[in-house]
This record gives sequence, C-alpha cells and structure tokens, in this order.
Amino acid sequence: MSKAKAPRRTRAETPKGFRDYFGPEVTARNEMLARIAAVYHRYGFDPLETSAVETVEALGKFLPDVDRPNAGVFAWQEEDDKDWLALRYDLTAPLARVAAQYRNDLPSPYRRYAMGPVWRNEKPGPGRFRQFYQCDADTVGASTVAADAEICAMLSDVFEDLGLGGDYVVRINNRKVLNGVMEAAGVLDPSEPERFAEERGIVLRAIDKLDRLGEEGVRALLGAGRKDESGDFTKGAGLPDAAADIVLAFTAARRDSGAETCAVLRGLVGASVIGAEGVAELEEMARLLEAQGYGPDRIVIDPSVVRGLGYYTGPVYEAELTFEILDEKGRKKQFGSVAGGGRYDDLVKRFTGQVVPATGVSIGVDRLLAALTAKGRGAETVQGPVVVTVMDKARMAEYQAMVGELRRAGIRAEVYLGNPKNFGNQLKYADKRGSPVAIIQGSDEAAAGVIQVKNLILGAKIAESASLEEWKARPAQVEVARADLVKTVQAMLDDPL
Amino acid sequence: MSKAKAPRRTRAETPKGFRDYFGPEVTARNEMLARIAAVYHRYGFDPLETSAVETVEALGKFLPDVDRPNAGVFAWQEEDDKDWLALRYDLTAPLARVAAQYRNDLPSPYRRYAMGPVWRNEKPGPGRFRQFYQCDADTVGASTVAADAEICAMLSDVFEDLGLGGDYVVRINNRKVLNGVMEAAGVLDPSEPERFAEERGIVLRAIDKLDRLGEEGVRALLGAGRKDESGDFTKGAGLPDAAADIVLAFTAARRDSGAETCAVLRGLVGASVIGAEGVAELEEMARLLEAQGYGPDRIVIDPSVVRGLGYYTGPVYEAELTFEILDEKGRKKQFGSVAGGGRYDDLVKRFTGQVVPATGVSIGVDRLLAALTAKGRGAETVQGPVVVTVMDKARMAEYQAMVGELRRAGIRAEVYLGNPKNFGNQLKYADKRGSPVAIIQGSDEAAAGVIQVKNLILGAKIAESASLEEWKARPAQVEVARADLVKTVQAMLDDPL
Repeated sequence: MSKAKAPRRTRAETPKGFRDYFGPEVTARNEMLARIAAVYHRYGFDPLETSAVETVEALGKFLPDVDRPNAGVFAWQEEDDKDWLALRYDLTAPLARVAAQYRNDLPSPYRRYAMGPVWRNEKPGPGRFRQFYQCDADTVGASTVAADAEICAMLSDVFEDLGLGGDYVVRINNRKVLNGVMEAAGVLDPSEPERFAEERGIVLRAIDKLDRLGEEGVRALLGAGRKDESGDFTKGAGLPDAAADIVLAFTAARRDSGAETCAVLRGLVGASVIGAEGVAELEEMARLLEAQGYGPDRIVIDPSVVRGLGYYTGPVYEAELTFEILDEKGRKKQFGSVAGGGRYDDLVKRFTGQVVPATGVSIGVDRLLAALTAKGRGAETVQGPVVVTVMDKARMAEYQAMVGELRRAGIRAEVYLGNPKNFGNQLKYADKRGSPVAIIQGSDEAAAGVIQVKNLILGAKIAESASLEEWKARPAQVEVARADLVKTVQAMLDDPL
Repeated sequence: MSKAKAPRRTRAETPKGFRDYFGPEVTARNEMLARIAAVYHRYGFDPLETSAVETVEALGKFLPDVDRPNAGVFAWQEEDDKDWLALRYDLTAPLARVAAQYRNDLPSPYRRYAMGPVWRNEKPGPGRFRQFYQCDADTVGASTVAADAEICAMLSDVFEDLGLGGDYVVRINNRKVLNGVMEAAGVLDPSEPERFAEERGIVLRAIDKLDRLGEEGVRALLGAGRKDESGDFTKGAGLPDAAADIVLAFTAARRDSGAETCAVLRGLVGASVIGAEGVAELEEMARLLEAQGYGPDRIVIDPSVVRGLGYYTGPVYEAELTFEILDEKGRKKQFGSVAGGGRYDDLVKRFTGQVVPATGVSIGVDRLLAALTAKGRGAETVQGPVVVTVMDKARMAEYQAMVGELRRAGIRAEVYLGNPKNFGNQLKYADKRGSPVAIIQGSDEAAAGVIQVKNLILGAKIAESASLEEWKARPAQVEVARADLVKTVQAMLDDPL
C-alpha cells in the first residue's frame, strides 16, 4: 500500500550537473573565445558548427574508460525509425563524420575550428558538470607532422595572445615512440597487433597516472597490480621488472633539449621500426618548431605525456599552465592541463574505409577561463546602464525619450520599470545593476526644465572615505538643464572621480 | 523468417532534420548576433546562458498544438533518479525557471537576452530543422506596458541597425482586447473562465490562419467548420453569424492611426471590462512609442496579430519584413514574420505560486539571416588565407617561417600541408580556399634569396577578361627579395587590382 504523493509546485531547478551562466560569465567566455578564434583564423582555420545531436552510430564509442555501449552519453531512441540519437560528447567525433560526409566538397587539407558545448552523462560532482564548452582546432587530410607542429605553435600563440606568456608549456610526445617502447618491453608484437591489447591498455593508463601515483605506484600497475588506500585492487599489466624499467625510463626520458631527449628515446625503442619512426617524427617536429622560434620554454618534448584516449596514432600534445594556485586545502599547486590533443589517423576511416590523416587539439574552455580569472587577465567588467528613475508615472514618455537620447549617443541606458512608488528601491536597483549614473526628474524639475544627474561611482567613493569638506567641494549630484543630459552623463562616464 | 542484415560501414550522416554550418555561415550568424547583442546591451539587457538540458517538469507543456506529454521535445530518463530530462524547445521556459530559481539574487525588473540553439522533436521537412537558433530579449518583473513598448522599440532598433530600415514593421496587439471581443461574441464568460475554452482555442487558431485561409476560410472555422482541399474537415467554434462578424471585424480593425484603430476596438469590445483594459494598454503603448518617434511606419497597432501560443496574457507583437522575395514557384511574396513575442504573466507563477509579470520577444535567427542575405546586407565575405606553397618538402621550416612572419603582421596565412608532389593541386587548393595570394619558392629561388608572389585575385580577373597586352603590362606574379615578403603581400592585399 503506497501512500499517494502530495501534489507539489513545479521545482525551479537546473537539472543535476548542469549550470546557468549569467551576464559577466557569458561576456567573459565570449570574449576569450573571440580572441582564440582570431588566432585560429590567422592560421587559416575556418569555423564549423555541427548540430548538438548525432546518431549514436556516428559518434562511436571513444570516451575514455567506458566499455558499455551508450554509456557516458545522453541518448534516446527516435520514434519512427528507431535510430538512436545522442548529444555529442566532444567536437572530434562530429568532425570525423563531417570530414567523411563532405569529403568531395571540403578543401583538403581541411583546417577547421569549432567552439561549443558538449555533454557527458557522468555522475556530477563539485566543479564537474555534464555540459561544458570545448574549443577545438583540427587539420584533416595532412599526414605530415608539420600539421601537428602547426597546431602546437598555434596553441602557444593562443596562450601568448591571452596574456599567459611565460605561464604555460606545450608538452609533446608520440604514440609511436610509446609503441616502440611497448615492443621493447615485450607487450607489442607488430606481426600480431591485437595480442597484448589489454596489457597495453593497462600500461597506458598507468603512465597517465604518473602525476598522481608516482613512480612506485606506476611500477606496481606495470607489474602484478596495485592496492589503493581504500583496499581496492587494480590488476597490473604483468610486466617483468626489466620491461617495467624500460617503460619507466621512457616516462623519465625528458632532457634539457629536444635533441637529447630524442637520443634517449632512440636508445629505449631499440630495434622497433615503429619506435624509430616515432622518434624521427618527434625530431622533425622539434626542428620545425625551433626554426619558428618556439623554444623548449614554450613547447617541449616530454615522454611522460601519453593522453588517455585510445584513438591517437602519432604525435600527442598537452598544454599546461605552470603558475601556482591554492587548492581547496590552501596548498600551492600548479594550475595544470587546459588543453590536449594529438593525431588520430583512423577516426574518419570508420566511415570511409580509407585512412584519412587528422590531428587536432581541444581546449577546456571553462578551465582556461578560470585560469585567466585567477591571473587577472579575464574580460573587463561590463559597466551597468545609466538608470533613469521614475518620479512621476504619468511622465513615462519623457523618461523614455531620455534613454532614447542616451542610447543614440552610444550610452547604455534604461528606465526603471519596476513599481516606482518606493524611490529607495529604484536606487537599490541601480546599485544592483552596477549603474554609474542615475537621472532624476520630478514634477518640480520638469517644470523648471532641469534634471538631477547623480554620479553613483563618485557617490559610493565619497560614502566610503570622504570628509564633509570633500563632500561639499565635489557633490556627487548636479542639477543641469534637460538639454544637457547627454553631455553631462558623457562627461561623468569619461571621468567619474 | 527475417533475413539477416548485411553488416555495413558506419554512415556519415547528419541525423534527419539536423544540419551543419560551415565557415561563412557560422561567421555571418555570429556577426549578426553580435550586432543584435549590441542593441540589447545598449538597452540595459544582460546576457544569460542556460544549459541546453532542463527537467521536463521545468519545461512544461507550452508548445503550440501539442497535447501529448513530452511530444515535441527530445527527452530521456535519468538512470539513477528516473527524472525525465529534455532539450529546451525555446528560451522562454528556461528563463521562467531561472527567474524563479534566482529570484532573490536577480535585479528586479530583470532584463536579459539569450542566444542559442533550441530543439523541436518534429517531423523534419524542406527548410524545417529540428535544431535552430533563437535570439530572445525579455523583461521579468515589470507589469507596466512601458516594458512591452520598450521591447518593440528595441526590436525596431535591431532592424534599423541591421540595415533593414524601411523594410520592416512591428505589429502590436493585445490579448485582453481579443478576450473582450470573445466576451462580446459570447465565448468568454468572466465569471466562468474555463467555460468555452475549446471554442476560444479554435477562434484563436482560426484568426492566426487569416493570412493563409482568407476571410471566408476563417469565417467557416468560426462557424460550423471547414473542409480543406484534401477533404479533411476541421471542426469550427460554432459561433452564430453575428458573433463571427464581431471576431472578423476585430481582425480587420486596423486603421491609419493607432488612435483610430483603438476607437474601432473600443466599439467592438462593448461592455467587456477586460476588453476595455486591453484597449487602454494599446493606447498607452502607442502613446509611448509615438513620443519616442516610432511612428506607424515602424510600429503599428494591428488587431490581426494574435500569436499562436496559449500563454500570452496582454500585449502581443510580431515583426514582419515587408520586402518581396520570390517563392519556390517564382511568384513574388512578402518575406514575412521573423520575430514575435508578448506578455506572459503566468509562466513564472508555475514555480513560485505568485504572478511574476514578464514580456519578451524571440527572433528567428535563421530566417532573419536569410533575409539579410536576400537584401545583400549579410556579413562581408571572409577572405581566404595567403597560401605558401611547398616546392621542396625539405624546406618546410622555411615555409613555416614565412607564414609566421605574415601572421605576426596580422595577415591570415597558411602553408600547404597536403601532399606537395602535384603543384597544380596546391593552386587548386588555394583557389578552393579563396586565397588572395600564393607564395612560391623552389630551390632556385631559395638559392637566389627571392620568392614568387602570385596575385590570385588579379590572376583570376586577367584570365576572365584581359588582353595579352594587359597581361604583359601587369603580370599577376612578381619576383621579390625574400626579405620583402610581408611588404609585397600587404601591398597586394591592400590593392589587388
């Protein structure tokens, strides 16, 4: 016997894991994206906007650490043809679909950028949302690593243009080198590519956790396995010690210069053909980037970068912000990764049957915006509107005429449209809106052909600190002729204090 | 016995009813939205970006002509708490949710604008998509019709700023007047508001079809009903002739001036209190708008505007583009409606239990963009990048250095990253990209310290029309010192012909 639920009012709630962005947040993000788009544009990249919805089939199953079909995405079934549709979980899968669908019309190579929300059906947590922005740039149809180098250079330019020069590093590596190391470590057999796939997955994930688990933890995962603090056991890759040494030496192969790092890597991959190819690609990228002036202070070869995603086939890269912030416990830590990408030569092949080379990067927009804010390099504060108060409801047309004049002069302005009875509420409203100036005209002023112009910025400052003398010497409110409205407000905005 | 399906390659297809936007389409829309946002900003409106996903409960059931729950939206059920989530079908429902959820934090009145995609789970058709852009501006918390007048004035300013002056008209009406007419026609009983609801729905939809069906068709729907060309019968409202006359007189009540129109309306609503209130509101809006210089050539009272949506409670408005285009059969027709809105004082009440007055407009972004394009007022064409061709793969670093120099001078530039073997393909690529200039440097040129700079715009023009003499007198390709790259390209871009 279940109790009938009491009927209740509709809940006014954002769904769990989703959020709203208000005025300044929207403006700041748009400005940042416009600055990034300008760099992408300068490099010859064209915008592309695909729909939020894709067929589940086209999206494929490329989310990291997700084995179940459709897990990780928001999906539903069409009523008529029973197709499954889903919200895109990144901007790369839709690009692969577009590159295949329009392959006869698009220029080749096709350089495109895309900015927009993506959706992940994951458990929401603090600061972890199920809709977030990405900002990607990819080149499809270029097999040369010059395309990868270009993406890294462009990423570096983005950070420079955002005012983060000296505060970032782009780290590059190559999956082929990693495969060479796997071969040397005995978990990759070029004549039987599918063999040891599970072991390689474990090795990849272990390396990706180096930051968090340290060398010892990674060594355990490379070997028999690892028990974490909670007592849970993670199965290891089962590598013998000598093989684990090779993998660990790989992650620690970074030296002062790209050439030195490459020399170490060449030793580690031994006789592996694919490994040698990867080292050669890294060398070529380093050479191209050095020639363009992107030294190791900006773009550096770092073998500890592997990127979690399974679909990368060659160069991989990651951008990290190196300045320190305080974590939730007040300890200093590096801001960390804000962008990552790499080469994925097989994604388009799913559709076309032919290998279509592709490489690209994805910037985590919300994290980068948080970084800009932390560094004080976010957007300038948007000024509130001039508020024309309503002293006399019957004179609304005249108040509207005032804001009309102000707007035609390019000044943001509005009439107070709430209940005008309580004048204090009107000034509170102006305060909440961040208004720089308020206009007041009651019937006496109207009869005399004048208006009161109240400098709210100066007023706030005086209220904070000024002495009575200063207050008298520079009043925050002036009475001027109605005809001088625009002139007076403009002067106040130009020089509020 | 069903046949087993043959396995097939993943289809590279946009889902039915969805589309992709490429380079110039994305740019043109973003530019138009930025221009609209500038007007909204000047009027004191703040941006708001809600998530694409809402609970079905919060969205409510306000799609026109949809009676089944969840019909018309893309919805799915959460795995854990079994909540139903859905993609927003407009930007008004999320605003109502936000206005309720943050009512203690937002300024009141709250002026906000929103731009973004919305989704409708409808049968796709030609030019009818299931994801499309809207661009809304609403004022929540202002009961005065000055707020409605402001939205109409702002809409007018938007069209003026987009270069559509003289090509549009904003038509306004008031639901209360319509209710007064319904009362006079005997299908609204103020003491029993729910009575005749079905009849009123039929009347509303009939008036909304005036353009399409003409007076005779509407009269049939107001009376016994109407059989269309296909033989399908639509049930009518069952109004006696005299009552239908009142409704039809209402739709035809537009006169040359707002004052005259209001006088006619006052006669039609007879003794209805709500009707008289509506006429007074229309008069007040006309007075405010006239005082601000928005004459009937820009904003006009037109009783034939009713707007389909059931939730409007007072003023309703619609913007129409009046210039002619050719329809699919080559016949001239007016471009038609691109924006509409009105006052909806009950939407927020669903959440709060209290009436929160609200009014706002929604611009159909894709239609407005099509109109701008038709009028030749769309965005300027985006110029393609300067293409540095690859004559010698080993010299890639030098080609990269060239584009680096060009970009630092603010010039859009890229290296050709496809297979460089076939030089003709490189020039075809530059052509497809709309490149203004191509740079060529083979080993001979490199040894001599020079480059070839090819003016592709002039080249195309010469190929079209020039005589041999002109060709010789002004070659489209010049050889200059490597050091003069930027200077030469810049001069060519500034004055291509």
